[in-house]
Amino acid sequence: MTQPFSFNLKATDGAARLGEVLTPHGMVRTPAFMPVGTAGTVKAMFTEHVRSAGADILLGNTYHLMLRPGAERVARLGGLHKFMNWDGPILTDSGGFQVMSLAKLRTMSEQGVVFQSHIDGSRHEMSPERSIEIQCLLGSDIQMQLDECVALPATREATERAMELSLRWAERSRTMFTRLSRTGQAMFGIVQGGAEPDLRVRSARALAAMDCEGYSIGGLAVGEPQAVMLETISATVPELPAGKPRYLMGVGTPQDILLSVERGIDMFDCVMPTRAGRHGLAYTFDGKLNMNNAAFADDPRPLDAALNVPPARDYSRAYIHHLVRSGEYLAGMLLSWNNVAFYEALMAGIRAAIAEGRFQAFKRETLARFEGADRD
Amino acid sequence: MTQPFSFNLKATDGAARLGEVLTPHGMVRTPAFMPVGTAGTVKAMFTEHVRSAGADILLGNTYHLMLRPGAERVARLGGLHKFMNWDGPILTDSGGFQVMSLAKLRTMSEQGVVFQSHIDGSRHEMSPERSIEIQCLLGSDIQMQLDECVALPATREATERAMELSLRWAERSRTMFTRLSRTGQAMFGIVQGGAEPDLRVRSARALAAMDCEGYSIGGLAVGEPQAVMLETISATVPELPAGKPRYLMGVGTPQDILLSVERGIDMFDCVMPTRAGRHGLAYTFDGKLNMNNAAFADDPRPLDAALNVPPARDYSRAYIHHLVRSGEYLAGMLLSWNNVAFYEALMAGIRAAIAEGRFQAFKRETLARFEGADRD
Repeated sequence: MTQPFSFNLKATDGAARLGEVLTPHGMVRTPAFMPVGTAGTVKAMFTEHVRSAGADILLGNTYHLMLRPGAERVARLGGLHKFMNWDGPILTDSGGFQVMSLAKLRTMSEQGVVFQSHIDGSRHEMSPERSIEIQCLLGSDIQMQLDECVALPATREATERAMELSLRWAERSRTMFTRLSRTGQAMFGIVQGGAEPDLRVRSARALAAMDCEGYSIGGLAVGEPQAVMLETISATVPELPAGKPRYLMGVGTPQDILLSVERGIDMFDCVMPTRAGRHGLAYTFDGKLNMNNAAFADDPRPLDAALNVPPARDYSRAYIHHLVRSGEYLAGMLLSWNNVAFYEALMAGIRAAIAEGRFQAFKRETLARFEGADRD
Repeated sequence: MTQPFSFNLKATDGAARLGEVLTPHGMVRTPAFMPVGTAGTVKAMFTEHVRSAGADILLGNTYHLMLRPGAERVARLGGLHKFMNWDGPILTDSGGFQVMSLAKLRTMSEQGVVFQSHIDGSRHEMSPERSIEIQCLLGSDIQMQLDECVALPATREATERAMELSLRWAERSRTMFTRLSRTGQAMFGIVQGGAEPDLRVRSARALAAMDCEGYSIGGLAVGEPQAVMLETISATVPELPAGKPRYLMGVGTPQDILLSVERGIDMFDCVMPTRAGRHGLAYTFDGKLNMNNAAFADDPRPLDAALNVPPARDYSRAYIHHLVRSGEYLAGMLLSWNNVAFYEALMAGIRAAIAEGRFQAFKRETLARFEGADRD
């Protein structure tokens, strides 16, 4: 029997929260970092290693999957979990953000967006209803409403208009989700309102009244200063129901994550660990290492033996440098795995610190170590 | 205590042989297929999966490794086994073949070859002595003499001259190997002589007199018809000592392997499974599948469930098709792994058939199944 979706708040430390999200495909320990499986694969990783690195949940991109291989095809093949050989929880975005950033020839209306595929130029329609339909076809455990995300900086008028449209789309998404979803699945509303605190508050209050299973904060980490992002989070979080999970979309750096957990965020996703891995960057608790750097050519040390995963423990920096220089697949494979393991170890450290009431100390020590080394 | 290198012939079936090669890094079951780890990595594979796919030994390329990261550097870092995180046996080639096919501005002399790196244009010298020195620096378990391999078709004069030079280089290699090698390491002489049976016989007899630990047949699978290759093997093998392993360099297709085992070959290497894997081709016992083909877009079947390795068992053809079309790392990762597992399963089947005295039947059935499906 599938249980209803639930969020169990286990401990708090200041505004930081320790919890568990229950989905039809299992539990997610929060604060959680979700590796991004853009087109049905966490790039350059086997799902087995995503799991063993400590990830409870991953993210799939509705925009990419609807264009290729297509949502109906994934459904015929048994859903996204089976398709990509991942039996844990999956969260999907609505596709809206990538329609705006990747697709061509977009036409926005109250109804939705008409756009051309960036792959083959084919014409597609995206509406709040179609986005939920696609996410249900994929079998997503945690689904997002379609929203409009304006790029920052934006005029107050444009920001307010997009926020209001997103609220109307949230209502339509909710109606469709109620019709199509199965027991245990969740739909999150998305708070918009740019860098305008009062718009964020209005958005959050209106969404809270819709009684979604959880709430996302969208439209951040799109180029604004970190201080603006943090102020916006601080203005928004108190308006969100304490008993529902809070997801900060597309964030971010280890620093961003620590400072957002401090402000009450429970869930994160970002392409950074895998994208950086494919570009020769290694995350360690002592900072980021550019493995293309000649300084590593004779370095016999592992990336970070304390991380205790094969990519961080069983290969020298000299070897990984050699792989990066040689353009070998294995460079991206090892570094993506290492970086996801680093992010998940960071989250595990955060969770342990909240449980023990020492989150502030953990945050300070982790930032000092990570950034201190970064400046070397 | 390291034992001496040895070859234990356990059974024969016609000319086909079942055996075990003992090296300082463990046993190699023959007939053996060696995945190619060109630049210190079997491309797109973790060594753990190379091992679990059934490979006992892999091949490293002296030419690539001497140019990048450099043999002295690998030695300082503890040798090639440690460098690439592979604790099983490693065979290295001499570098000569790739100097001829990849390097620029080559100058051949009795002494050796002077050439320019294809990577950065730097100038290098390769001699029989330097090749052995490099292979000892890498810590190779089974080393090859430097030889000259002429492209086929070639004049008899050019072929004979290269064969004679290769014999003189074998003597020089042997002297250096005796000086530098450690207990248990092996050096194989390489039979040359193109498609001229009498030259092959002369080469084999001269090498046999040098009492190498094993013998390679070089200069084949370089563009000649398969019949020429097989006739050359048949002319050469009877001249090689029965108590030493025989390695057919750079070969080849599943068909080539079956027909060469039938003629008494014990060891093979080829880039085909991994290169094909990176280009969207899947090997199965029912033939090769071009996973880019639209016919697979909705195919829920695994590549070959009977192969019983994750890439062949846990993912649909539709998913792998999607990965190939999307240009994802995971396409090359899964297909390379599948293809190496297929090659190793073929070798395991060959070994079992020889042990049970049914090699001919196994060969016929395997060829019929593999080629029958190929023609569909």
